[in-house]
Order: sequence, then structure tokens, then C-alpha cells
Amino acid sequence: MSRADALRWDAARLSAWSEPHLARVEAALSKWVGVDAPAQLGDAMRYAVLDGGKRLRPLLVFAASEAVGGRPEAALRAACAVELIHAYSLVHDDLPCMDNDVLRRGKPTVHVKFGEAGALLAGDALQALAFELLTPAGDEVAPAVQARLCRLLAGAAGSQGMAGGQAIDLASVGLALDEAQLREMHRLKTGALLQGSVEMGAACGDESTSPATPAALRDYGAAVGLAFQVVDDILDVVADSETLGKTAGKDAASDKPTYVSLLGLEGARAQARELLAQALAALDRSMLADTGALRALACMVVDRDR
Amino acid sequence: MSRADALRWDAARLSAWSEPHLARVEAALSKWVGVDAPAQLGDAMRYAVLDGGKRLRPLLVFAASEAVGGRPEAALRAACAVELIHAYSLVHDDLPCMDNDVLRRGKPTVHVKFGEAGALLAGDALQALAFELLTPAGDEVAPAVQARLCRLLAGAAGSQGMAGGQAIDLASVGLALDEAQLREMHRLKTGALLQGSVEMGAACGDESTSPATPAALRDYGAAVGLAFQVVDDILDVVADSETLGKTAGKDAASDKPTYVSLLGLEGARAQARELLAQALAALDRSMLADTGALRALACMVVDRDR
Repeated sequence: MSRADALRWDAARLSAWSEPHLARVEAALSKWVGVDAPAQLGDAMRYAVLDGGKRLRPLLVFAASEAVGGRPEAALRAACAVELIHAYSLVHDDLPCMDNDVLRRGKPTVHVKFGEAGALLAGDALQALAFELLTPAGDEVAPAVQARLCRLLAGAAGSQGMAGGQAIDLASVGLALDEAQLREMHRLKTGALLQGSVEMGAACGDESTSPATPAALRDYGAAVGLAFQVVDDILDVVADSETLGKTAGKDAASDKPTYVSLLGLEGARAQARELLAQALAALDRSMLADTGALRALACMVVDRDR
Repeated sequence: MSRADALRWDAARLSAWSEPHLARVEAALSKWVGVDAPAQLGDAMRYAVLDGGKRLRPLLVFAASEAVGGRPEAALRAACAVELIHAYSLVHDDLPCMDNDVLRRGKPTVHVKFGEAGALLAGDALQALAFELLTPAGDEVAPAVQARLCRLLAGAAGSQGMAGGQAIDLASVGLALDEAQLREMHRLKTGALLQGSVEMGAACGDESTSPATPAALRDYGAAVGLAFQVVDDILDVVADSETLGKTAGKDAASDKPTYVSLLGLEGARAQARELLAQALAALDRSMLADTGALRALACMVVDRDR
């Protein structure tokens, strides 16, 4: 497919591309999550993961993997693993000692349904399961790819990734962050796992791509990751809870710094457009022919309404 | 070293063997844990991990690795990783929504010191760090060994291991478990990670050991893991909080089923001796020459007073 074609992906084409991937992810998650887990643990894990969410991270994994000619078996496991990390982070984030949220994806949060201890354990078990999915016995995924995927996911999830960003978030309530500090918080809190999704997808390939590719895809992932958060901040202000499927307006209510509070609504929108331009420019630098899905996903992140 | 020699390891010899390993683990953990983590996250992670604990799991990793001629670099990373999983489980276990404990290793628990949200995040980040340590870039540890170590650790920590056991524990308060149910709970809750330590140590080897070895070491790990919990139940009754470094008598206070409540004190002691015999018999079946440290560690687990 030519670059010109790729630029023309409309919503229908993105849907047609996404649909079979989403179906594979749902089937795989349903097969792998919480099966044979004792007591209520399996139910809580499945409740946290199945039948909800946009699955943006899995789609980024698939799009990046396809762009570099990655192996579908590895990409499917990477896609599920990154979604499990995302799901566990939401479960723990919603706990009373964190955001104390009762609504998520239009349903009661996990701790409302299974108790605090049940939600804590479900989150913990989901994180472990992510790494279990990445390391199947047998020769389905090459050991070197397994190791690389674990390295990327652990880095994206840990203290210098998502968990680190949440710690900054926790420490920053009520503080007047400047734009650089806000950007650093979101680079870790949301950006690291989105960027990690792209890098994990690329790690499913055979490493015979152009030397420019890994750095360019990392830049793409970083721009999309930050754009996602800027749009999240915008939606928290302009959307209602019903559309969002979670509590709207909670940033302002909890006195958290956001891109909107810092740059104003129009400033935040301009920022999102600028980040989209950066993401698309990075794809041009990647020297990859088949970036249509990555391009369309970046546009979707910025144009979404929930 | 002959089997006869191995049988003769006394406390002094175990100490002499343990000391340099413990020093390496402490140095490595100090170098790797919570460094460059933002906000208070790094402090909480280090507080949870450093300068405390018997480091039984790392010692099991080293002993098993040496028994199979494993690579020291891999064993050190495996030893630290398994200790991080253990440490995170204690942090989350102590939270108000779980055991609500304020004393651990003679110090205030992590949430008392860093708040509930801080403790939650520190535990989450420690779990991620465990998998990060197992997957270094470069050629320090072969990719196949990295993948195997991640697989074993994720399995031991997850819903069919430690987290699953904790879910059973949570669901069983106030219930009259029989011995089979109690054993199943502890096989997962404490046993899985202890057995996993042994298996991870064995996975640092080159797989050229006798075919009998992996199964025998697994049996050894399972017996030691269960013996550890039986002795824990005994100590909860007979020791005081000062010696234990944690709150004694809390099982009875919280109406939890234990080996002592089920078998009586003497019955539990007989059970521990029987499990020790099983562990030592498994080592005989392993066909390994150098099992002195594994043997001595099994004895120590049963004879300990804290």
C-alpha cells in the first residue's frame, strides 16, 4: 500500500481493519484470563478485563507489528499482556485509597463489586498474568522475542513508567505544576504504556527493518501517548459521564492539574493537533511502507469523543 | 562434596555459605530497587525491600542454581526478582483492606509510613521491577533463560500461585477448612513462591542435568514450601511479637484456620518433620552431587524460631 493510500484511511477502513483484531483479542482474553483461578479471584479478573474498553493498546500493538512484519502469535500475546497491565492499573486506580471511583466503563468498579481486598488481588494477579502470557512454553514465540517483550512491558509498567507517573500524580494534587512537569507526569502515567504498546508490536518483528525504524516508532508512540492524555483532559471537561462511561469532571473536582487548567481548552486542542502532527511525521521518518493503521489510530486518538 | 559431607552441614557451615550470597543480594537490591523512581515511590520501594527479612527465597535460588551448575549472574537476578515479589506481597498483605497490620520486621509497615496509596503503588512497582531484573538487555543472561525465569516467576506469583492462595485465604476466614483445603491454600499462598525459587535456581543451569532432577527439585521445593507454612503457624502460637518481628497470635485473633488449629501443636510439629523428610528424600532422588546447601536450608526452615 502506498503512503498516499495510507493517508486516506477513513473511519470505515479503520473499523474494517480493527474488527478482526478486536475479535481475536476478546477471544484470547476470554480464554486466558482468570481461568482456573480459585475463589472469586477469577471472576474479579474477568470482570476487570472482559467486555469493556476501547482496546487502543492492543490495536497499537497489532498496527506496529504489522508495519514491521511481526509474527501474529507474538503480537496477540503482546496485545493481551499490555491490556492486562492497563486493566490492572484501572482496578488499583479506582480503589478508595487512590481515586475512589465507583463507575468505570459504565459499570460498578471492581472493588464495589468484589470488595477492596478482592480488587487488590485481582489487579496483582492481572499484572503477573501479563508476564505469563508473554512467556509460553514451547516454540510459539521465540525466546529472544519473549525476553524483549517482557523487558519492554516491565519498563513501561514500573517505577520509571506507569507506576512512577501515578506516584507523581499522587504527589501533585493541589500543586501548581508547570507544563514541563505535567508533561513528565503524563509521559510516565499514560504515555509509557501506550509507547510501550507500539514498541512491543515492533519487537514482534524480525529486526531486519531499517535502523531508523525503532527510534521513529518510539517517537510516534510518545506523541500518541501524550496526545491521548491531552484529549483525556479535554474530554473530562467537555463530555458527560454517560458518554465517557466514567465520572466526568473529576479532575477539576479533585483539584488536579490538567492540560486544560494549564493551557485553556483551545490551547489544549492546539496541543493535541501539534502532537498528532509529530506522530505522523515520525511515521514518515520510520521508512516503513505499511503505516496506514498506525496513522489512522493516531487520528482516532485525537478525534475520539470518549 | 559427597552426600555424607552434605548431611553434616551445621549452622556455622550454613552461615559461612549464606553470608557472601546475602551480601551480594543486599548490594544488588540496593543498586536496583527504587533508583530514579519519582516522588516518594523509590523511598517506599526501598523501605519495603532493603535491610530486612531472612532472604530465604534468594538463598533457595542460589542453592538450587549451584546444585545444577547454574550461571551466577542469572541466579543473582532470579534471587532478587523472587525477593521483590515476596516483598510486594507483604506490602499489599499488610494494607488495611487485607490484614491491616502495622508492624513488619520490627518496623512500621509501608502504608503506615508512606500512606495507603503509596504502599499500593510501591507494591505494584516492585512486581514490575522483578520482571525487569529478569530481562536485562545485552548478553549477561541468555534470552532462553530470561524467558524461562519470567515464566516460572509469573506462574508462581499469579492467580494459580501466590495471588490465588491469598484469594482462598481471604475467602476462608471463619470457615472450617479440612486439612486438604488448608494444604491447597498454603501450597499456593506461600508454597508456590518458595517452590518457584527452587525451580528458578534450577533454571539458571544448562539443562544437561539428569532427567530426574527437575521433578525432584520441584518436589523438594513443594515440601519445603509447605513445611515453611506449618512452622509459621506454629510460631504464630508459640513465639512472641518481638522475636517474630511481626504481630504474633494474629491467626487465632482473626479466626483463620491454621495447621495448629487443625492438628494441634504436636500434630503440626510432626507434620513439619514429615515434610522435612520428604524434602530430603527428594534431594536423594535428584541425582545431584552438591545438595548440601539445599539440605541445610530445608533443616533451617523447620528449625527456625522466627
